[in-house]
Amino acid sequence: MNITSVYVARLPEPGPLTFETYDLREEATPELDDREILIRVIYLSVDAGSRGMLDDRGAYVLKLKPGMQAIGTGAVGEVVESRHPDFPIGSFAATIFARWGSHMKAAPDDPASPVFAVDPQVAPLDAHLGALGLTGFTAYTGIFLNLPLAAGETAVISAAAGAVGAVAGQYAKIRGARVIGIAGGSDKCEYVRSLGFDDCIDYRSDLEAGLRRACPDGIDFYFENVGGDIQRLVLSMMRRYGRMSFCGQIAQYAGEGEPPGPNLMRVVLQELTLKGFLCMPTYTEKFGQFRAETMAWLKEGRVRHDSSVIYGLENAHEAVNALSAGRNVGKQLIQVAVDPTAQ
Amino acid sequence: MNITSVYVARLPEPGPLTFETYDLREEATPELDDREILIRVIYLSVDAGSRGMLDDRGAYVLKLKPGMQAIGTGAVGEVVESRHPDFPIGSFAATIFARWGSHMKAAPDDPASPVFAVDPQVAPLDAHLGALGLTGFTAYTGIFLNLPLAAGETAVISAAAGAVGAVAGQYAKIRGARVIGIAGGSDKCEYVRSLGFDDCIDYRSDLEAGLRRACPDGIDFYFENVGGDIQRLVLSMMRRYGRMSFCGQIAQYAGEGEPPGPNLMRVVLQELTLKGFLCMPTYTEKFGQFRAETMAWLKEGRVRHDSSVIYGLENAHEAVNALSAGRNVGKQLIQVAVDPTAQ
Repeated sequence: MNITSVYVARLPEPGPLTFETYDLREEATPELDDREILIRVIYLSVDAGSRGMLDDRGAYVLKLKPGMQAIGTGAVGEVVESRHPDFPIGSFAATIFARWGSHMKAAPDDPASPVFAVDPQVAPLDAHLGALGLTGFTAYTGIFLNLPLAAGETAVISAAAGAVGAVAGQYAKIRGARVIGIAGGSDKCEYVRSLGFDDCIDYRSDLEAGLRRACPDGIDFYFENVGGDIQRLVLSMMRRYGRMSFCGQIAQYAGEGEPPGPNLMRVVLQELTLKGFLCMPTYTEKFGQFRAETMAWLKEGRVRHDSSVIYGLENAHEAVNALSAGRNVGKQLIQVAVDPTAQ
Repeated sequence: MNITSVYVARLPEPGPLTFETYDLREEATPELDDREILIRVIYLSVDAGSRGMLDDRGAYVLKLKPGMQAIGTGAVGEVVESRHPDFPIGSFAATIFARWGSHMKAAPDDPASPVFAVDPQVAPLDAHLGALGLTGFTAYTGIFLNLPLAAGETAVISAAAGAVGAVAGQYAKIRGARVIGIAGGSDKCEYVRSLGFDDCIDYRSDLEAGLRRACPDGIDFYFENVGGDIQRLVLSMMRRYGRMSFCGQIAQYAGEGEPPGPNLMRVVLQELTLKGFLCMPTYTEKFGQFRAETMAWLKEGRVRHDSSVIYGLENAHEAVNALSAGRNVGKQLIQVAVDPTAQ
């Protein structure tokens, strides 16, 4: 049996990826050591970093070079070979790190690369790459762990229609905050409102006036995932003792280098706290708690998971482009094979 | 008896103040209400804000307009009239707010404007406007209260030859950190080293190379009081989980408006915390603790207080210019009258 793996063929120019970015290679099925498993991949996670790590000028932390296998923040699929008693053949498993391809060898006992047995009766498979995966954990860290958010405060969530922002806003609602999203376009804003956000501002048509209307008394808490003009505007509206939880700056991942940031005098004058986070490894020990709580909230309908799917490893570049262009709603995935558990 | 008060005559152009900035007016001695005192001023505090508050474009929080009495962060002097039993005539008193002039009426019972009885045997009068005044409390807040600093960490102090920075660095040494100052010119750097800093970098001749040499493993903690290029460089050298305690941005107080700041992606990637503070009213309840501790450290020689004096209310503008141009060493003061307690 052969498997298919996705390699980086060439680094892209600024702008969309093309079919020349990745190279699909047939390879022999890897041998399993004791307590390893082979997962037939059904879904792969696509993130802002999927584009960022192909950009040697961008700010993203991890860089890929031609000849390296493409990687991402998780795969979910069916166990098709197993030398691990907790992961029998025919069961399902999710990871939070993935080498892109049709199959993935995993070592569930390696704490550096967690693998979870997942029950498709409890949550759909794709949710394990979204609300229950690193995406959800990023939102959870930014809202619950990195900086305090109190009930009744006004929280603003950037990139609110994105996978992380959508979950972050739902968490902020669970926390009891008044939650305002920022997203691009009226369809996305409608989607964000449908998630239970109190309002959503379309940054393409109504950023400054809209945000001032939605936050007449200013902003207490900001979930930052974009950078640029939105960051500057939000900073200028932060209230005394406000908190800005820094998850990322998507706006600058694609080729623009590092544009200047906002003047920070307001950090002094309003006694603000700005704090960045990488959910792993800093908060790794909270991952179990996050999954248990979010699983319960999914069941209660207090958190909703959505995903956008592009089918086929040969279209991996289009999945990355869909995310970069903001065409996705919820979590962007590459679907690698039919999901036998989907209704 | 008449007193002399200093009023703002006209707002300055960018650059140094001139003798036209302030206007000295003779006024009748104010009447005292019950439990009020009249202080014959010996020293007045000059701060970065003394220039900043005359600048309608600058970032400083407080603005003065022509016709208003000049103000500052404290006066110390002799009680010459008293209707308060704790402040007898002939005793000495210090304030942390002052209207500039030869005399100042004060209400020691008003919690919004503290007045302290001071004993010239314990500390020199001028120290109550420096290490024991709002200057010292600002440093104390930035090092001990606003964000944690651990023994053995590398702390960088900007404006280290300034009144606040000089004390901040001495506090950071008391905390057990390795402390690197940044100051302008070799004389100032020598002064900063004489205070016990482990090293001091001359930003005029050796900023980037010097700081990299002094902090080969990066920076854990930064006491920020300048903004601009130094802020950008320090941010680029911050280590994982580093903390930037934001006191001010002196570089932009004089007329330049709000230049762009640094790109904040590193806040995410290194999981940094940036936190601004205004020592009052946020930390007012710690003021007594600060004075008691610092008084002890002064006595033990672990904190040293220095001041630079310009004599005469008619030279108030030159005292402000001396500070703006960085000609002061330690705390910049206007000496209004002979200090009868000075040896």
